[in-house]
Amino acid sequence: MSTDHYDLYYWPQIPGRGEFIRLALEAAGASYTDHANRDDSPACLFPLIDASFTGREGNPPPFAPPILHHDGLWLSQTSNILLYLGPRLGLVPADEAGRLHTNQMQLTIGDFTDEIHDVHHPIAVSLYYGDQKTESLRRAQDLRDNRVPKFLGFLERCVQDRGGWLLGRPSMTYADLSLFQTLEGLRFAFPRLMRAIGDRYPKVSAIHERVQRLPALQPYLRSRLPFGDGLFRHYEELDEPEQSE
Amino acid sequence: MSTDHYDLYYWPQIPGRGEFIRLALEAAGASYTDHANRDDSPACLFPLIDASFTGREGNPPPFAPPILHHDGLWLSQTSNILLYLGPRLGLVPADEAGRLHTNQMQLTIGDFTDEIHDVHHPIAVSLYYGDQKTESLRRAQDLRDNRVPKFLGFLERCVQDRGGWLLGRPSMTYADLSLFQTLEGLRFAFPRLMRAIGDRYPKVSAIHERVQRLPALQPYLRSRLPFGDGLFRHYEELDEPEQSE
Repeated sequence: MSTDHYDLYYWPQIPGRGEFIRLALEAAGASYTDHANRDDSPACLFPLIDASFTGREGNPPPFAPPILHHDGLWLSQTSNILLYLGPRLGLVPADEAGRLHTNQMQLTIGDFTDEIHDVHHPIAVSLYYGDQKTESLRRAQDLRDNRVPKFLGFLERCVQDRGGWLLGRPSMTYADLSLFQTLEGLRFAFPRLMRAIGDRYPKVSAIHERVQRLPALQPYLRSRLPFGDGLFRHYEELDEPEQSE
Repeated sequence: MSTDHYDLYYWPQIPGRGEFIRLALEAAGASYTDHANRDDSPACLFPLIDASFTGREGNPPPFAPPILHHDGLWLSQTSNILLYLGPRLGLVPADEAGRLHTNQMQLTIGDFTDEIHDVHHPIAVSLYYGDQKTESLRRAQDLRDNRVPKFLGFLERCVQDRGGWLLGRPSMTYADLSLFQTLEGLRFAFPRLMRAIGDRYPKVSAIHERVQRLPALQPYLRSRLPFGDGLFRHYEELDEPEQSE
């Protein structure tokens, strides 16, 4: 197999954190196999995250998916995979400072999505949402009132000009793609909240629109997995209460 | 000022996530100013995290500390700062794969410490512990029963040989220093739990011991800040219940 071909391993049936990797691969038109949604998906993934696995070909074991395999190298952790892919896919500035700042932005977007996830799992990932709903309702209020405005306000501040990208660079990076996906997830999970406050972040919304229209992404965006019960989930009771007239 | 001098900005009075950076700088004998605990600390930090700050010298603004300034470059996000410092301080392998795997390990240790933090703040970082104690008690049980064993078991599996370092490399990396700090934090926050299960992770414990004895760290370890009310906190009710005789 060519060294220009990538292999991605992730949980089946949800976009989840794997989607940040897929969007980068798709936007760059890279050749890859998405092992998450094939018949052999469990057989491929489970040995890689088994509690006895110590890694392959001199690589350390992953703690969790997404996992990328390329040219003998096995990588995990979303931002780490994107750090590797960035220069290879032309989705990061060439200089060290630009790469570090893109990674920094990706990590902050990752922190944001972790908090959005934790709203429906504030007590334990091993419990169902229904078993931690009381705590979720309380945490959701803080997310809506404080955290979403703080993160979106921060990201808005990072875009220097309307019509520009994150980091004020002339070129799109993988962090812009992740920002797009996070906006998509927020609008899916919290439609009322985003209708109420979305207008406050015009530069962030403009990046979302530009990514959504990228020619390279069109076939993929039409056919990809719905959010389902993954990282971003829609529970009506966690969204903004409707305003009374 | 020499370009070999680093400036670190962080919250005052707690080791927190700044400590992962300090341990790397200290272990390498680097020259740095720790602006977190000087008289001018608030005056230095607050403009950098102000809600109107858009960055300095072409650098994007940080979302939160720790923040490193070096040679015109401003960086935030703990793992990103260590990614930058690693090769400069000799705390990472020279090859790309080694650097990515060290970053991957650091990110997993960061996820672990985030979960340890979230035990005392399961609802909102803006609320006091006392205002979310009911939820903390519930989350702490999951941390003790599932998450600490899962993360420590994983890290133990990453050490190839007793007496070795994480990643099976002959040399110590900054991820080993962060593992040491995480063990320190766990023993402080959950002393009963760690007395009960600590023996199950002899390779992880051996790394802790080796770091604790590093000659370069001795003066610093004797004088550094106590944990206090930071990332790792000791609340007796969140620790393992004493076993009845």
